[in-house]
Amino acid sequence: MNRGVKLSILVLEEFASDFSIALGPVARECDFASDPAAVSKSHEILLAQPALAADYLSQGHRPAWIQSTWAGVTPIVDVARERDILVTGVKGVFGAMMAEYVMAHILRDSQRLDAFGASQSASTWQPDWPHRLGGRTMVVAGTGSIGSHIATVAGGFGIHTVGVSRRGAANPAFHRVVPTSDLALVAAEADYLVLVLPDTAKTRDLVDADVLAALGRDAMLINVGRGSTVAEAALLQSLDEGGLRHAVLDVFQEEPLPPAHPFWRHPRVTVTPHIAAVSHPEDVVKIFLDNLARYRAGETLQHRVNLEAGY
Amino acid sequence: MNRGVKLSILVLEEFASDFSIALGPVARECDFASDPAAVSKSHEILLAQPALAADYLSQGHRPAWIQSTWAGVTPIVDVARERDILVTGVKGVFGAMMAEYVMAHILRDSQRLDAFGASQSASTWQPDWPHRLGGRTMVVAGTGSIGSHIATVAGGFGIHTVGVSRRGAANPAFHRVVPTSDLALVAAEADYLVLVLPDTAKTRDLVDADVLAALGRDAMLINVGRGSTVAEAALLQSLDEGGLRHAVLDVFQEEPLPPAHPFWRHPRVTVTPHIAAVSHPEDVVKIFLDNLARYRAGETLQHRVNLEAGY
Repeated sequence: MNRGVKLSILVLEEFASDFSIALGPVARECDFASDPAAVSKSHEILLAQPALAADYLSQGHRPAWIQSTWAGVTPIVDVARERDILVTGVKGVFGAMMAEYVMAHILRDSQRLDAFGASQSASTWQPDWPHRLGGRTMVVAGTGSIGSHIATVAGGFGIHTVGVSRRGAANPAFHRVVPTSDLALVAAEADYLVLVLPDTAKTRDLVDADVLAALGRDAMLINVGRGSTVAEAALLQSLDEGGLRHAVLDVFQEEPLPPAHPFWRHPRVTVTPHIAAVSHPEDVVKIFLDNLARYRAGETLQHRVNLEAGY
Repeated sequence: MNRGVKLSILVLEEFASDFSIALGPVARECDFASDPAAVSKSHEILLAQPALAADYLSQGHRPAWIQSTWAGVTPIVDVARERDILVTGVKGVFGAMMAEYVMAHILRDSQRLDAFGASQSASTWQPDWPHRLGGRTMVVAGTGSIGSHIATVAGGFGIHTVGVSRRGAANPAFHRVVPTSDLALVAAEADYLVLVLPDTAKTRDLVDADVLAALGRDAMLINVGRGSTVAEAALLQSLDEGGLRHAVLDVFQEEPLPPAHPFWRHPRVTVTPHIAAVSHPEDVVKIFLDNLARYRAGETLQHRVNLEAGY
């Protein structure tokens, strides 16, 4: 449909200059902006951070296609569905990063890195045995490309993996997959409950007091998906009552996490500032350029977001 | 040869009672001791910690077979060779533990766990990007079951793995294997140089000033094999001169590491007290019972130590 025709492309990104470099020669075909308010012209294609794209769309623009530079596309799902705008995501690039984050925090704990660090500070030779991971159980809520990658890497350590997905369809990356309705049931088996869910109406507060109550006292919760998945007040209460051992949180209901939030100083909480998965411009641009070629050729784009499901 | 006959078995172990439990009904056939000096009787079979077995052998005993409870058998290699005593080791059980140790320390570094810990202590939301492991290079000196397991797990993170072995024979766990003579050559490519070598005449001080000089300034050295592999004075000098970024050491020339040793307080050294691989009695006993059945049946035992090579 647009074969050979020069397209109107807007790159709307906080780190627009990084994208300009990553785009190489294609950059010459693009307009770049970091502030949606500074853009008056309409464009056919957006390569954009969803929050900025939402502001741009609120000005009434209607691009044909938005390639998101982030995994989470919640800010544009509703308006894109209403205006029939095609949205593509950046699936498939976060699995490895997420797996590194998850295994780093599991191994920090199982290998007692903090205790050995304290012994070293005291020049004390104090042998103690790391916990072995083989035979432990990891429940991963979210069985898409990210959850599958995490399960595969965890499986390499001999960890038994149980996936949780909407329908519970079998997935070769997991030893077993159950439907979301069984989340509390499998949480009871979890040494590690890992959350990699998108932000949708169905995932909001999914990890509530009931799910937390099902966790064993020695369980660890790791949320690398969206902050909205966890009922934070219920989590604090459960941690205080010893209902689980530790929570590793990279995402929060409010970000940045407010300085006064009790998570910061809680001895059973590890806080990281939403860094488990970074959209590296080069990864995103690779997906964009592939999709751009498909767009020019009138082919179906990759990593299309299902605007009904919201991810 | 000893089919059905009651054998004379001595369990000579610091943790003799743990072995007694793990041995189950077979424990009734065994004598147990933690102090070699307390044993006067000769036994046909020893299940023993090598250092204790060496004391026992120094009393003139000559068992037919010693099943070591430790990976390192150096204390008994010479005397066993002289007296023609069969020695079997505990190969195959340490790979998973070593891989967990190695990946814990690599991920602690790449995921900036210490920096994020400091930010959390200050209730500061300070995003910074973890380093990705995909495409990094790990050189593993030692391509036996332990080195192979480490390489396989590292490969699951997208790390490129190069093995170093005496002859450089190809090994499917590694992308490439080179002979020991090329150690300095491949050290130059290493983001991570992991040592899992036994203590033999050929491995002593193998990682010397030349090998250390070949490492890049950003490289990390991880020794989970034997302390004798590393020339410690040369390592300290190289660290002080910025010749490599960090050393993670679980083993040392002298253990326990003396309180005054500079490694304890060196900002570029992580010290752990020889805990990367623990002989769990249940793992060792599993190997022992399998070998005992073979011994009774007159079959060849598993995990035989090559007393000429020393491992």
